[in-house]
Amino acid sequence: MLLRWCLFAPSPTTEAAMSFHKLDDLGRKLEALEHALAILGADEATHMAVGGGEKRAKAMAALAGMYHTRATAPEIPDWIAAAEGEELDDEQRAALAELRRQYTNLTCLPVEFVERQTTARMRCEQLWRALRAKNDWAGFQPALEGVVALVRDEAALRSDVLGLAPYDALMEQYDPGNRTADITPVFADLKAFLKGFMPEALAIQEARLRKHPLKPLSGTYAIDRQRELGLAMMAAVGFDLTHGSLSVSHHPFCGGVPSDVRITTRYKTSDFLSALMGVLHETGHALYEQNLPKAWAHWPLGKARGMAVHESQSLFVEKQIGRNPAFWRWALPVVEKHLGEAWSLDDILPHVHRVERGLIRVDADEVTYPLHVILRYELEQELVSGSLEVADLPEAWDARMRDYLGLSTIDNPADGPMQDVHWPGAAFGYFPSYTLGAMMAAQQWAALTRERPSADEDLAKGNFEAINGWRREKIWSQGSRWSTPDLLERATGEKLNAKHFVNHLRQRYGG
Amino acid sequence: MLLRWCLFAPSPTTEAAMSFHKLDDLGRKLEALEHALAILGADEATHMAVGGGEKRAKAMAALAGMYHTRATAPEIPDWIAAAEGEELDDEQRAALAELRRQYTNLTCLPVEFVERQTTARMRCEQLWRALRAKNDWAGFQPALEGVVALVRDEAALRSDVLGLAPYDALMEQYDPGNRTADITPVFADLKAFLKGFMPEALAIQEARLRKHPLKPLSGTYAIDRQRELGLAMMAAVGFDLTHGSLSVSHHPFCGGVPSDVRITTRYKTSDFLSALMGVLHETGHALYEQNLPKAWAHWPLGKARGMAVHESQSLFVEKQIGRNPAFWRWALPVVEKHLGEAWSLDDILPHVHRVERGLIRVDADEVTYPLHVILRYELEQELVSGSLEVADLPEAWDARMRDYLGLSTIDNPADGPMQDVHWPGAAFGYFPSYTLGAMMAAQQWAALTRERPSADEDLAKGNFEAINGWRREKIWSQGSRWSTPDLLERATGEKLNAKHFVNHLRQRYGG
Ligand SMILES: [Zn+2]
Ligand SMILES: [Zn+2]
Repeated sequence: MLLRWCLFAPSPTTEAAMSFHKLDDLGRKLEALEHALAILGADEATHMAVGGGEKRAKAMAALAGMYHTRATAPEIPDWIAAAEGEELDDEQRAALAELRRQYTNLTCLPVEFVERQTTARMRCEQLWRALRAKNDWAGFQPALEGVVALVRDEAALRSDVLGLAPYDALMEQYDPGNRTADITPVFADLKAFLKGFMPEALAIQEARLRKHPLKPLSGTYAIDRQRELGLAMMAAVGFDLTHGSLSVSHHPFCGGVPSDVRITTRYKTSDFLSALMGVLHETGHALYEQNLPKAWAHWPLGKARGMAVHESQSLFVEKQIGRNPAFWRWALPVVEKHLGEAWSLDDILPHVHRVERGLIRVDADEVTYPLHVILRYELEQELVSGSLEVADLPEAWDARMRDYLGLSTIDNPADGPMQDVHWPGAAFGYFPSYTLGAMMAAQQWAALTRERPSADEDLAKGNFEAINGWRREKIWSQGSRWSTPDLLERATGEKLNAKHFVNHLRQRYGG
Repeated sequence: MLLRWCLFAPSPTTEAAMSFHKLDDLGRKLEALEHALAILGADEATHMAVGGGEKRAKAMAALAGMYHTRATAPEIPDWIAAAEGEELDDEQRAALAELRRQYTNLTCLPVEFVERQTTARMRCEQLWRALRAKNDWAGFQPALEGVVALVRDEAALRSDVLGLAPYDALMEQYDPGNRTADITPVFADLKAFLKGFMPEALAIQEARLRKHPLKPLSGTYAIDRQRELGLAMMAAVGFDLTHGSLSVSHHPFCGGVPSDVRITTRYKTSDFLSALMGVLHETGHALYEQNLPKAWAHWPLGKARGMAVHESQSLFVEKQIGRNPAFWRWALPVVEKHLGEAWSLDDILPHVHRVERGLIRVDADEVTYPLHVILRYELEQELVSGSLEVADLPEAWDARMRDYLGLSTIDNPADGPMQDVHWPGAAFGYFPSYTLGAMMAAQQWAALTRERPSADEDLAKGNFEAINGWRREKIWSQGSRWSTPDLLERATGEKLNAKHFVNHLRQRYGG
């Protein structure tokens, strides 16, 4: 130990990292506001009195305004620049880089533009809610045209600041590093495969059901028993029930904060699988949040990487684990214990692996879902570039829908281009995340099973910790340290590769 | 309508009331932070995951810090002064006066002092939790001495700023306008009455129970049925279930925000009355919050007046309504409907009107409770003035306890001066609110029945709206417009008068 009493000097870290400490302090204040917004948001969907919504909306808008004002304060770039000259460790440097990225993304649109866009978006979302129910495309079209015009401007503004192509600049908000140059060829491979594979999978399913008719769900599943089953599954799969909970809401979600993750589901007494698969999906999101690096919680670095990575974690649990036959060997006795109904593997798997051609993305299965996404990915790029106009969207949608899924939406825009809230909500560049997530989950499962060939046996025994250990090391503990493609490559040893997802579908749904 | 297009001038209200509008804006931001703190607080006690506490505490501390920084900004007195010169209506003037009062109360202690006091208080509260269980006064005494020393300083500081006597300056935080000069003689009357009346009431009770033995509670009250009963009673009494809810927590409370009031209870399957009377008590608090003037919600003027008035509202529902025999004529069929157990009035009232001499304030009944409070009121004035030292507290407590209630605590400090969290928590001047609330509730009931002699019949029919109409007009709609004594006098036509509470006790518990 060095005696320092004779030196009258401040400690080197305090002195050297003063600007970093200012940013660190700011991060803690922002974390508190985020905490409030996250819990208020989850509370609104689960426990709020119905009449509390107006004041809640005002309170959340004011808190979000305080967050934005603090997170975009004009002195922050100076602090970042000064901190970059300070003596920092690797993690602090990484934190600084993410801070700069967040600041750039938060400030790249003029305030005046954001206000105009918010007005247009909210108006269009309201119209969407009212007119979708009436299948009224003509009434909706002008509002969507307004949103698309502003999205084109937004893409140009983001493109200028970030030095990216316009659509890439939009995707960058949701998954840093995702580029059409990488994604388009992978999606093209996948699409080519699925257009042939889907009819094949449907034919195989039909033949199987002819030999072994579907055992119907009994239709008497008490909600409190379904809830206990869900909680038992969550806990088994790794959800820390001391840092999170399960509630009911109209739309299932994963919210809250990493120290208190709020997931929800909704129950039908006629069908236990829908709530259970929903619980597994949200548990996948929750595991990511609960296992993010705690020391970085108040930095952007400590957040989950992005939408595609997040979806890869939920789909890993829902599809790679939760629809794996090995998992059901372990799960069926658990189901029987809670619901008092015995199922054989042969009876449950046709429910779990059901494939169906349909118009609705959110109802789609593993095989058909990517075609819904690729259709949107292609159309929204054309909308952003201006090669497609909103007026031509119903025909363009219908043409691709017939081509990819053999279904027409020409008389049914409500289930065509009016189907999702994303476009009225000005969220262009978001859709690819869903299928990228599914592909990344398959690629992670493939990498994991290369290292641990016994993974299926682990599932059959209900031993999820070995699998979670791999995920914790490769994904969860990394926070936002790497771009989305880099995180995937570091975790799996290769770039995004459709092969793994294709193999997964072939194995599960092929002949 | 006056055409104004030819005048290029800002609208007079905007111009004239610029400073007021700044304060109005500030109020909306503070309301958002209060909303977050209130919901996060209620959530913590009801729905938070057990492991979420540490982050929750940090988030709430940071949000409270943001609130304090904004609410005590140095420019606020200038805005208030400027606004006082602006053209304002009566309500705006009243809002301004309350704003000034709040600012003075928030800023009258130096930040350095508050920090020292918070440290001492939190340390003493922790010790209290640990040492009360061990009945260890000697270990606790030094910590309480530290808190009392700082409370004496606090009283002196508040006294200087407010121009009030030291103990009055402490009470002023909880109920503006309450003064020992008014309260002490009223409490003296009440004490003199109770010392004679309590033994009389106990003797009457004993004689009655000899003639008509107590019918025990059956001990099989399912929690979900008790909950439905509680909700039915809440709704009947006037609780707006679209702007509030009932949950479970370890300690019952009323929290949340006026647009979404969160009340809680806890259930024992052996006893439906304890949860039900708790629900009625918290419903009383909730009615006040739900009926505060909505247009003033973002001003201090729009808040409930203070602790004694708030307690008068909860006790009005719990004691004046909920323990009134007329109420039980209406309530017994409701109980039977939900719990499937039939009670006669003669069987239920001995439970509802049970009187018992005991050591514990929170377990006390209407008759004995005031003696617990008056004992504390007397002792805490002596502690603040310095005429009593903490070291002498166990003897002083015991002496008064023997005098007022005929019980000794000399070997049992855990149930003596270590009984409540208020003193370790540095909340001196708070205790009188409980009994002032009980007296004010009786005085309000007396005033109401003078105007509406049929009030008992209203209760027997379950017609609470006539009674609530009086309370809404006289109390709830007034927010913080008047001091506590002025509010009472305007509502009831007279100053605080022990007579009404005494008459109430005589009628209910006398011979
Ligand atoms: Zn998801
Ligand atoms: Zn109370």
